[in-house]
Amino acid sequence: MLKRYFPILEWGRSYNRDVLTSDLMAAVIVTIMLIPQSLAYALLAGLPPVVGLYASILPLMLYAVFGTSRTLAVGPVAVISLMTASAAGAVAGQGTAEYLEAAITLAFLSGVMLAILGLLRAGFLANLLSHPVISGFITASGILIATSQIKHIVGVKAGGDNWPEMIGALASVIGDINPTTIAIGIPAMMFLFWVRKGAKPALQSLGMPARAADMTAKAGPVVAVALSIMAVIFFDLEAAGVAITGSIPQGLPPFAVPSTDLALIEQLWVPALLISIIGFVESVSVAQTLAAKRRQRISPDQELIGLGASNIASAFSGGYPVTGGFARSAVNFDAGAQTPAAGAFTAVGIALATLFLTPLLYSLPIATLAATIIVAVLSLVDLRTPQRLWHYSKADFAAHAATIAITLLAGVELGVIAGVIVGLLLYLWRASRPHAAIVGRVPETEHFRNVDRHKVFTVPHILSIRIDEALTYLNARWLEEYVLEQVADRPAVRHVILMCSAVNEVDASGLESLEAINHRLGDAKVGLHLSEVKGPVMDRLKRSHFIDELNGQVYLSQSKAFDSLVADDGTPPEPHDQYLARGLI
Amino acid sequence: MLKRYFPILEWGRSYNRDVLTSDLMAAVIVTIMLIPQSLAYALLAGLPPVVGLYASILPLMLYAVFGTSRTLAVGPVAVISLMTASAAGAVAGQGTAEYLEAAITLAFLSGVMLAILGLLRAGFLANLLSHPVISGFITASGILIATSQIKHIVGVKAGGDNWPEMIGALASVIGDINPTTIAIGIPAMMFLFWVRKGAKPALQSLGMPARAADMTAKAGPVVAVALSIMAVIFFDLEAAGVAITGSIPQGLPPFAVPSTDLALIEQLWVPALLISIIGFVESVSVAQTLAAKRRQRISPDQELIGLGASNIASAFSGGYPVTGGFARSAVNFDAGAQTPAAGAFTAVGIALATLFLTPLLYSLPIATLAATIIVAVLSLVDLRTPQRLWHYSKADFAAHAATIAITLLAGVELGVIAGVIVGLLLYLWRASRPHAAIVGRVPETEHFRNVDRHKVFTVPHILSIRIDEALTYLNARWLEEYVLEQVADRPAVRHVILMCSAVNEVDASGLESLEAINHRLGDAKVGLHLSEVKGPVMDRLKRSHFIDELNGQVYLSQSKAFDSLVADDGTPPEPHDQYLARGLI
Repeated sequence: MLKRYFPILEWGRSYNRDVLTSDLMAAVIVTIMLIPQSLAYALLAGLPPVVGLYASILPLMLYAVFGTSRTLAVGPVAVISLMTASAAGAVAGQGTAEYLEAAITLAFLSGVMLAILGLLRAGFLANLLSHPVISGFITASGILIATSQIKHIVGVKAGGDNWPEMIGALASVIGDINPTTIAIGIPAMMFLFWVRKGAKPALQSLGMPARAADMTAKAGPVVAVALSIMAVIFFDLEAAGVAITGSIPQGLPPFAVPSTDLALIEQLWVPALLISIIGFVESVSVAQTLAAKRRQRISPDQELIGLGASNIASAFSGGYPVTGGFARSAVNFDAGAQTPAAGAFTAVGIALATLFLTPLLYSLPIATLAATIIVAVLSLVDLRTPQRLWHYSKADFAAHAATIAITLLAGVELGVIAGVIVGLLLYLWRASRPHAAIVGRVPETEHFRNVDRHKVFTVPHILSIRIDEALTYLNARWLEEYVLEQVADRPAVRHVILMCSAVNEVDASGLESLEAINHRLGDAKVGLHLSEVKGPVMDRLKRSHFIDELNGQVYLSQSKAFDSLVADDGTPPEPHDQYLARGLI
Repeated sequence: MLKRYFPILEWGRSYNRDVLTSDLMAAVIVTIMLIPQSLAYALLAGLPPVVGLYASILPLMLYAVFGTSRTLAVGPVAVISLMTASAAGAVAGQGTAEYLEAAITLAFLSGVMLAILGLLRAGFLANLLSHPVISGFITASGILIATSQIKHIVGVKAGGDNWPEMIGALASVIGDINPTTIAIGIPAMMFLFWVRKGAKPALQSLGMPARAADMTAKAGPVVAVALSIMAVIFFDLEAAGVAITGSIPQGLPPFAVPSTDLALIEQLWVPALLISIIGFVESVSVAQTLAAKRRQRISPDQELIGLGASNIASAFSGGYPVTGGFARSAVNFDAGAQTPAAGAFTAVGIALATLFLTPLLYSLPIATLAATIIVAVLSLVDLRTPQRLWHYSKADFAAHAATIAITLLAGVELGVIAGVIVGLLLYLWRASRPHAAIVGRVPETEHFRNVDRHKVFTVPHILSIRIDEALTYLNARWLEEYVLEQVADRPAVRHVILMCSAVNEVDASGLESLEAINHRLGDAKVGLHLSEVKGPVMDRLKRSHFIDELNGQVYLSQSKAFDSLVADDGTPPEPHDQYLARGLI
């Protein structure tokens, strides 16, 4: 029990020197990667850069205690930063104390919600977000984020929560463009793009081993940061109007208190819930992918608790909402992290950075951070998925396209909500029109197949219907309509056999529909029979009076049902299309 | 095409004298039943009684043109009247012109919504209301309605939209009780209760044939109305403080215009939508029950259009929201109605009543109408369903109980919404935890069954999993977790076979999960195979790259898959529990 809620008790027991070495090694690499990323994502969230560092210390410690993934790296991520900016921006202006308070409160609310969902074991709620909705949301967020950073690259001030607003705001300040800022931003961006693809082969061609080259390439953003700081100092670019980070408070995270103002909480709870769910889905996907590679397990319900604890910790240490990020977790995994202790060591690394490194970052140009963000998020934009979905399933494509369009046009919050609703409506639409087939006997076998697809034998007075769906309230009405229509169309029918081999559940509404079908067929003097009912479904049906009141029999197999009812009447089974041609069916 | 939207063109062609006689006969009986009912339900809706008559004229005519049920009788019904009172009461006080305007606008909005849903063929939305939610809602509405009429029986003024409010309001005016009103109300109620059960046998014992006795008993409320009018006139009860109907405007319905005030529409659209959906569900259930008895068909999407036209007509003729009612439709059916023309004739009957009968109703006591309502709605209260649901399915019971509780405590609108949400959450919870079984070969057959329930043969390096569910986004995550956990638990496994006989669909999220499982098992050097994939599912999978990238084979049957993989390795299948006992599985 204790181990379920404190996974550290599980892996901590077998911790040894070898594991420690691997974890420390990974922590060093992730720390180097995380410093510029944390600063950049805080900027994206509209917060002072140091808040990104604060959000990368205590949350990692707490995740190490409560998380079930061995290799997940928690901290600020792009999409959640954008959502934070959108939610906090609705409450206060960027740069104000109220804005920071809103961000802290978001982390707190989101942490509490995640922890409660975890204690309620309600991880299933994340299922509401289908893959097409998530990928649409991430693509659109990537576009929004990249667009939001253009202002920093060209040195203007502009705002906007959605694409039309952002483009409009940029267009209106086009005269204010600062060429010196562009001279920093564009080369930084080009360098970072090159680092992603070209640095590893280049380092290898210089004789570095593949793995080391890969890890070194991950430090590309640090190089960009260092070079651009030097450029600012050397050429005194601050005087030329290049925006810089300025003085960052030195020292460990402060103790912060989330707001208890009910009016603020009322404004923030919906975005906090959306941040929680999006953050959870992103984090669990990453954790599962990595766990599977080493045949490890994660527990989604405990992950909710782990992320909840991390966010609560983030709030109390002056941070903002965090979650498990893909890029950094993959680096952590590749660098050889064995346990969540690697995350705790990373936290120590970041803490040391806040103690000693921040003065060095004074002259860091904002444009370089923006370049880091743009290069990172453009890889989120996925143009192949829409094509693939269009080809595979129009309904899934519709959910994907609606999510992209609404996220771009109306912002991240409405985008997620619309995606969930469109997905649910399409699901309900499909669930209300399940598949059923009229079946007949494949000659000389005990198999029954669709009369429209196979050469099968039938008799006019027996109608065999295979139901290819669980009978739940979403389709109960359909079954009534379908069965009664089929019987209404075939005046010769005296018996209906429902073949239930693919009926995985019958809920109370499904039961009532079966009862209604039974009564209505009884009124019309037609027998209702069931065949191949699964064990658990039969167990449940026996708890009702349905079987007693059934206007026919329950048969073990479709074949037995058909044989027995044919024998009662004497009409011989003949090829279905012959009966059809003679107008008897 | 034209016949689809105008079902009258279908049945009108074969209309003849015999059918006319049957329809006229039924119309006379339904008219007699409908007059007191229409007055009473208008009272329940907080409207002048004549509005109930108006709502029983044009709507019936329009339904005769657009409706697909041969025997449905449209008009004011109890639950919709209560919902109208609740929605209009939130906008204006009863008795004001604004209140009437709100009721008319509700009918208009509801009619437009129904018609649009019908044109979009969106009848499936009614599936959101599961049987347990509907029956809970109707039980709670019955209790609320009966409680709301107590004030008229005891002659006091009181209000309230939910049970605590109603009880509180009644308690506060207990001193104002009018004994003369009680002397009318209680006997009327007792008489009507007796009529429901005792009148038919009594008439039969007087020598009347069963069918005639049944029909005559339906006129019980008319007798109660006539007797109580006579009592009021004879004893001058008006002077004793008995509330009476008073003067009812004589003449055909006026031409009314729904409000186009956007502020009002904004307040009313949610209740109008709820009224539409509840009305549609009630009406379709009744229509289907009756159609099935004569092997007729109804079209739910066209029913939306028929009810939409009826409600729009109701709005323009000074009425309020209407739908198909159970009691009157059953009477119409039993009285021998053959076509919707019976409804049109009923409309003529009611129109004649508004022209000539209304002066006779001047002295009708309100208490008698209230007694009619109480007796009618108490039959809606169903105390057996909760027991049955508790026994059959705890989840369905929870949805039922939540709907009853919230409807009673917070009113009809929140009750319906809560029922839909609770039902959906429980469905999603169940859908996210579908059933799967690890299977092995039943000796000397080609059947594969659950290893936990049957004596079967397996081999340690092959894991056969039967998936008992469609793979959609609601459970895609589950499948990944389930398969990867099973593999993580069994280090000997080299091949996984997914047996797909009950997989009725694979949506884009399901496909991505299969791809993820394939990649992850590939990373762990485990083969992934599929067996018994259904035709339509396979067709769709072939439109993706999944089959090409599959880290194994697709087999026609589970038996072929197992045999082929066993042959590759050579380990002989042995009883599953022997392998288990030896710690090999």
